[in-house]
Amino acid sequence: MGLSQAALAAIENGFSALCHGRVIMPAPLGMYIQESQGEVHVKTAYIAGNEGFAIKVATGFYANSASGLVNSSGLILYLDARTGFVKAVFADNGYLTDLRTALAGAIAAKYCARERISTVGIVGTGVQARWQLEALTLVRKFQRVLVFGRRKTAADAYMREMQGRVGADFKVVDSVADLMRASDLVVTTTAAREPVIEVKYLRAGLHITAMGADGPGKQELDPSVLESADVIVCDAYEQCQRLGELQHIAIGKERVIEIPELTSGRKKARTADDQISVCDLTGTGVQDSAMAEFSYRALTATET
Amino acid sequence: MGLSQAALAAIENGFSALCHGRVIMPAPLGMYIQESQGEVHVKTAYIAGNEGFAIKVATGFYANSASGLVNSSGLILYLDARTGFVKAVFADNGYLTDLRTALAGAIAAKYCARERISTVGIVGTGVQARWQLEALTLVRKFQRVLVFGRRKTAADAYMREMQGRVGADFKVVDSVADLMRASDLVVTTTAAREPVIEVKYLRAGLHITAMGADGPGKQELDPSVLESADVIVCDAYEQCQRLGELQHIAIGKERVIEIPELTSGRKKARTADDQISVCDLTGTGVQDSAMAEFSYRALTATET
Repeated sequence: MGLSQAALAAIENGFSALCHGRVIMPAPLGMYIQESQGEVHVKTAYIAGNEGFAIKVATGFYANSASGLVNSSGLILYLDARTGFVKAVFADNGYLTDLRTALAGAIAAKYCARERISTVGIVGTGVQARWQLEALTLVRKFQRVLVFGRRKTAADAYMREMQGRVGADFKVVDSVADLMRASDLVVTTTAAREPVIEVKYLRAGLHITAMGADGPGKQELDPSVLESADVIVCDAYEQCQRLGELQHIAIGKERVIEIPELTSGRKKARTADDQISVCDLTGTGVQDSAMAEFSYRALTATET
Repeated sequence: MGLSQAALAAIENGFSALCHGRVIMPAPLGMYIQESQGEVHVKTAYIAGNEGFAIKVATGFYANSASGLVNSSGLILYLDARTGFVKAVFADNGYLTDLRTALAGAIAAKYCARERISTVGIVGTGVQARWQLEALTLVRKFQRVLVFGRRKTAADAYMREMQGRVGADFKVVDSVADLMRASDLVVTTTAAREPVIEVKYLRAGLHITAMGADGPGKQELDPSVLESADVIVCDAYEQCQRLGELQHIAIGKERVIEIPELTSGRKKARTADDQISVCDLTGTGVQDSAMAEFSYRALTATET
């Protein structure tokens, strides 16, 4: 189970179902435990016609790292949509979330970026910096990867690892400015709470996917970056207003295209090579259900 | 793992924590899948000081029974309150919910019923009709059990089974009227959507626990039963207004005592033997977390 064209199609289909009114997606359940610096989120969505649906528990306990533990964990329950019985427990510690998040990044690039690009810029050196780059190979060819991390050693480690996974020339750059100057497609994957991308970095033809901000206070783009973009895309408008880049700037829904509108063919993002496009991703329950359905099918098919 | 004084104390302590402001309990997540006549509910609560907390998934898919399947299922996740890691998955198909629901019934009887009773009346013959009666033995002595069920064969089967589990004289009665005439403590355990208990049945000294209604439209008591009671108790006022008997009658919060107020000693229910008391139970997330914590501790203690 990993990234594949089939998994990409599964997530695209989930998004499209949302646009066709074939998805029930209640507001997530959230609980905050102050004394542990912990948060728990439960997401679910039902895609009509699917065999099952996911209930995903995701936790972030931010004192963990001080004890050498990962902050994030969780699991996905996969329930039969006809009987409500639990068909599977994916004790995946966030693995399927990593995949569906990366695949949403690939979908953003597929529908927003120029057809022909040569250089990808990755800001951040964590788990998603890895997955996002790998997922991009499903939708675009590129020759060069620039990476920027606040810690040079982490960027070096990223480069060493990813050179074996993605066929391109890698280079660690010293600043976001250097990265922006030479990149056609940029993915920001940080936990930043202040803008990393300034408006002065924008160039004609650029596409940026900002997937880091997924909670109140988080921010990777200066609001003027969104203001200056020709095309603004996001996964789910209301959610991005609460949790994503759109929380930092008032932009009416009429100016924003949702990914489901792109995958379903209702709208187009970029209409010219010199436009600047930006996509804000926060992650949705429909991706979890689509990913769980796809994984369950793939795993049970392997068994026979 | 079953009913015990220790389990009873665990649930009581959970309720008391709620009263002392030591519980975080967000509103449940609910999703309805019309084409399967299905509903999914996710409840969670954190009790300060506990090692872990529960996330409970409960499903009801009401077309299942037509295929010979049970309608209800689900499971409980038990997460570490310090790290957010999953410590246990109780794939219990509702077993711990059955226990914590029965224990809430016992707590209602403990704080509301007369000290000395002789006859218990059970309305309904399902799973909770069994558990509720057994749980009552933790808090009251009684000599006789009357049972009423719409299907005589189910009532007979109930009697045969429970005679082996509870030391008392059992009798199947032909009507709710007959049952009410001779019972000191009545537990209603039905899925009724119209009143089963009429006000004309009320007698001095009676206590009724109505645990059946837990959703919109469900009802076991005529509203005048609540109006006529000297003491009205419930597990959680706002929730009972949405899901329990209180949805069918406007009764101000000042007239209703919550179970946490009883277990914590803040209020008293019955103050005289001839009073009539009624308790409305809908089930709360804090019971799930208390039950999961208790079960986890009991099970891991057995291992050593």
